[in-house]
Amino acid sequence: MSTLTTRAQDYAQWYNDLVLKGGLADYSAVRGCMVIKPYGYRLWENMRDVLDRMFKETGHQNAYFPLFVPKSLFEAEEKNAEGFAKECAVVTHYRLKTDPENKGKLIVDPAARLEEELVVRPTSEAIIWNTYRDWIQSYRDLPILINQWANVVRWEMRTRLFLRTAEFLWQEGHTAHATKQEAIEETEKMLEVYARFAEEYMALPVIRGVKTPNERFAGAEDTYCIEALMQDGKALQAGTSHFLGQNFARAFDVKFAGKDNTMEYVWATSWGVSTRLIGALVMAHSDDKGLVMPPKIAPLQVVIVPIYNKDAAVREKIDGRANAIMQELKAKGISASYDNDENTRPGWKFAEHELRGVPVRIALGARDMENNVAEVARRDSGEKASVSLDALAETVVSLLDDIQNSLYQRALSFREAHTTNADSWEEFVSILDGKGGFVSAHWDGTPATEEKIKEMTKATIRCIPLNNRQEEGKCVLTGNPSKQRVLFARAY
Amino acid sequence: MSTLTTRAQDYAQWYNDLVLKGGLADYSAVRGCMVIKPYGYRLWENMRDVLDRMFKETGHQNAYFPLFVPKSLFEAEEKNAEGFAKECAVVTHYRLKTDPENKGKLIVDPAARLEEELVVRPTSEAIIWNTYRDWIQSYRDLPILINQWANVVRWEMRTRLFLRTAEFLWQEGHTAHATKQEAIEETEKMLEVYARFAEEYMALPVIRGVKTPNERFAGAEDTYCIEALMQDGKALQAGTSHFLGQNFARAFDVKFAGKDNTMEYVWATSWGVSTRLIGALVMAHSDDKGLVMPPKIAPLQVVIVPIYNKDAAVREKIDGRANAIMQELKAKGISASYDNDENTRPGWKFAEHELRGVPVRIALGARDMENNVAEVARRDSGEKASVSLDALAETVVSLLDDIQNSLYQRALSFREAHTTNADSWEEFVSILDGKGGFVSAHWDGTPATEEKIKEMTKATIRCIPLNNRQEEGKCVLTGNPSKQRVLFARAY
Repeated sequence: MSTLTTRAQDYAQWYNDLVLKGGLADYSAVRGCMVIKPYGYRLWENMRDVLDRMFKETGHQNAYFPLFVPKSLFEAEEKNAEGFAKECAVVTHYRLKTDPENKGKLIVDPAARLEEELVVRPTSEAIIWNTYRDWIQSYRDLPILINQWANVVRWEMRTRLFLRTAEFLWQEGHTAHATKQEAIEETEKMLEVYARFAEEYMALPVIRGVKTPNERFAGAEDTYCIEALMQDGKALQAGTSHFLGQNFARAFDVKFAGKDNTMEYVWATSWGVSTRLIGALVMAHSDDKGLVMPPKIAPLQVVIVPIYNKDAAVREKIDGRANAIMQELKAKGISASYDNDENTRPGWKFAEHELRGVPVRIALGARDMENNVAEVARRDSGEKASVSLDALAETVVSLLDDIQNSLYQRALSFREAHTTNADSWEEFVSILDGKGGFVSAHWDGTPATEEKIKEMTKATIRCIPLNNRQEEGKCVLTGNPSKQRVLFARAY
Repeated sequence: MSTLTTRAQDYAQWYNDLVLKGGLADYSAVRGCMVIKPYGYRLWENMRDVLDRMFKETGHQNAYFPLFVPKSLFEAEEKNAEGFAKECAVVTHYRLKTDPENKGKLIVDPAARLEEELVVRPTSEAIIWNTYRDWIQSYRDLPILINQWANVVRWEMRTRLFLRTAEFLWQEGHTAHATKQEAIEETEKMLEVYARFAEEYMALPVIRGVKTPNERFAGAEDTYCIEALMQDGKALQAGTSHFLGQNFARAFDVKFAGKDNTMEYVWATSWGVSTRLIGALVMAHSDDKGLVMPPKIAPLQVVIVPIYNKDAAVREKIDGRANAIMQELKAKGISASYDNDENTRPGWKFAEHELRGVPVRIALGARDMENNVAEVARRDSGEKASVSLDALAETVVSLLDDIQNSLYQRALSFREAHTTNADSWEEFVSILDGKGGFVSAHWDGTPATEEKIKEMTKATIRCIPLNNRQEEGKCVLTGNPSKQRVLFARAY
C-alpha cells in the first residue's frame, strides 16, 4: 500500500490522497469533472436517502426538470443570469458528422446549429419558474413544494475533487408560496433541515447564519447558510437556503389570484446541498491514516477480518462464526462485510479499512474463538477491546453510536477552539495567519469594507449568525461603529 | 374536469391526455425535453428502487461518470460513434457574456470556445471504458460490475412524452469481465432481471429475445431485448442488454494480465432501461377513464374518500376512522392518502383518482359507518364491494395482490390474442393492417429482406425469441428457406 501524505506535510495533498486512494473519486478525461467511484457513490446514496426522507417528512415531493435552459429563459432574471453567465457550458449544435478530411473522425455539423443556444443548467430557477407559470393560477395551487435530485454544471477554472468540480450532483428545492412570510418560514425550515442533517448524520457542527449582500446567491433577497470548519482552519459553506422574494415570479410573470381575486406575484425559495458535502466530511473527520466515516452514513459500518492460521478446521470455524456475526449485525440494521480475501494479510487489510474509514473493525482469530471473544477496534480513536462474542452485536451498536457522538464532539471542540474574537486589525490578521478558524469581529456593515478585507486577507464574511448577539463595537478595519460581530474566515 | 380522448377516437391523443392530465409529465420550453411531475417522478422512484435492489442483489454497485464525453473519446469506438453522431447535443463554449448591442441580453462569448468539443452523453460506454483502462491491470481487478443512474441526451427529431424525448432518465450498467463466457452470462442475467421486473412489478408480459444485426446497439456484438405489446397492437422495446465483445476494450486499449500473465482485451456488457418504461406502463394497462397503475409500483396504492353529510359529528367520526385505516394500511406497508379536501365533491374525486390510476379506492360514508363497512372499489375492473371495517386492511392487501395479477393476466391474454402466425405475404400484411400485434413469420435471415419488409410495411423484426423453436419454412417475403420464425411488429 502506498503511503499517504500527512496533514502536516501538505494538507491539500493529504485531502487528494484520501479521496483518490480511499476510493471515493477519480479524475476523468473531462476537464474539472470527476468520476464518483462506488465507495464514494454509496456514501452519497446514504446522504441522499437521509435528506430525501427529511424533505418528504417536511412535505416536499421530487420532480425532474430539463437539463437545458434556453438562453432567453436563462437571461430573464438578470442578476441570476449575470451571476452564472461566466461559468456556463453552452450547447450550440445538435449533430456531429464524419470529417470529410479525416477518416474515422467526427466534426461538429455546421448545418446543425441550434436556433437558440442551450445553457447546461448551473441551477434550475429559470427553467422551473418558467414551468411554474403554467401550474399556478390561484392560491389553491400554492404552495408548491418541489425538490429535484440532479447534476449541474458550473465551468469553474480551478477545480478540486468534490469541493469544486465543473459537474456536480446535488439537490435543489424550489418552492412557491402565496405570502412573503410563508416563503421566509420555508427558507428557515430548510436551513434547519440542513443543519440537522449536518450535525446528526455527518457529525459536522455548523453555524447557522445569513450571508451579507456581497455573498448572496445571484437573484436572492436573502441567503441563509450553514458554515462548517475544516481541520486546516478554513471554513466551508455546507448548504444554502435562499429567500428569492418575487424576483423569479417577476422575471417569468408568475402571478396567482388570491382569495379576494387580486393578482399577486408568487413568493419563492430555493435551497441546495451537493456532493461538496463529501469534501467537507473528508476534511472534518479524517486523519493521517485515512478517511474517518461517521457511522450513520458510512458506506460500510463494520468489517470483519479473519486471522487465519494454517489449520483448515480453524478457518472453517472462523468463517462460520463470522457469518453468524454478519447475520446478527444485519438483523440490527448494520452494514457489515467479511473480508476473507486470501490474497492479502490481516495487517494489510487493517490498513486498507483504516484508509477507507470503516468505523468498526472486528478481528477474529483462533485463540479469540477459544476464549469466546473477538478484538474490536474503533476507527476514530484507534482503541481496541476484547469483546465477548455473545455481546458482540450489542457492543457494536453502542460503539457505532459512541463513535458518531465522539466525532461530533471532537469537531465541535475544534471549532470552539478555533473561533476567536478579534478586536483590532493586528489581532484579526494574526489569528487568520496563525491558528486560523472563524474570527468573530465587528464590521461596519458596508460592502466596500467587506471587499477590502477580502482583498487584504482573503478572508470573507462567512455569515452573520442567526440570533446574533447585538453589541456595540468598532469595525475591525475602519473603526466605524458596528452593532454586532460577524464571522470571518478564509474558506473553501 | 376535462374529458379524455378515448382510445378508439385517437390512441395517440388518448396517451398524451393521460400523461398530461394524469399528472405524470408536462411539456417544457426545451424542444423535446419534458418535465417529470411529482406523480410521475414518484412512479419512477418506485421503479428505480426495485431495479436498484435487484442490481445490488446481483452484485452491482452504483457509480457516477461525467455528463460530457470529449469528442476524441466519443469517436474512438467507430460503430458506436457512427450510431449516435447524428443525435448529439454538443457543448462548444463555456461562457456567456453581455450582448454589447442589446442591454440585458447575453451572447455566447466567442473567446470562450472549448479546444475540444464535448458531447452530452447519449450513452456512457466511451467515457466509462476510458476510465476502466486505469482501473484494470490484472484478472484480480475483474469483474467490474457497475451501474449508473443518470440523464442522457439524444437529439431526436420527433419526440413523444416518455416514449422518445431528447433528454431522458435511465440506468446504464457497464461491466467488465475476464472471459467471453462470463460476459455473455452477465448479459443474459441482466436481461432476465429486466424481464422479471417488467412481469412481476410492471405487470407487463415481455418476450425475451435477441435483436437481428440491423437492430443491434451501435458497437454491440449482440443485443438482447425484452419486447412488450401495447393496446394498439404496436410493440415497444422495454429494455436491452448488450454483449459488447471486446469492441470497447480495443477502442480504449483496456487489457488485463491473466493468471498466466498473458495480456488480453477485457470483455464488456452494457444494459439499460429508461423512463420510456413509464410510457409502456401507461399504454399497456390504462383505459378510457385514465391511468391504471400496477399496485406494486403505484405512486399511491389506496385513496380514502369521505362521503360527508352536513352533520359535523359524523364528519369527525369519519375522519377518525379514516385515520385509523390509514395507520392500519401503513403498518402493512401500503401507501394510502386521505382525500378530505372540502372544495371538491366525492364524484369529482372518484373521477380524479380514476384518472390517476390509484388501484384501490375506499369510500367512507355515515351509513357505511353505522353498518361497520366501507365501499371498496378496484380501479382495474371498476368492481365495488362492501367490506367490513374490521377486515378492511387485510382485504386491501389481497385486493392489491389480485389487481397486480389481473393486470398481468389481462396483458398476457391480449398479447397471446395478438400474436399470430403468418405464412404468406398477404396474411402478413393483412394481420399488420388488421388486428396488429406480433406477427410470427419465417424470414430468410438477410438484412436486405428485413430492410425491404420494413420499407413496405413499417414492421421490424422485434426479436428472435430466446430458445426459439426451430422449424423449416419459407421466408414470408422472398420464399427463401428459413429455419425459424421471428417476431415482426410495428413498434414505438
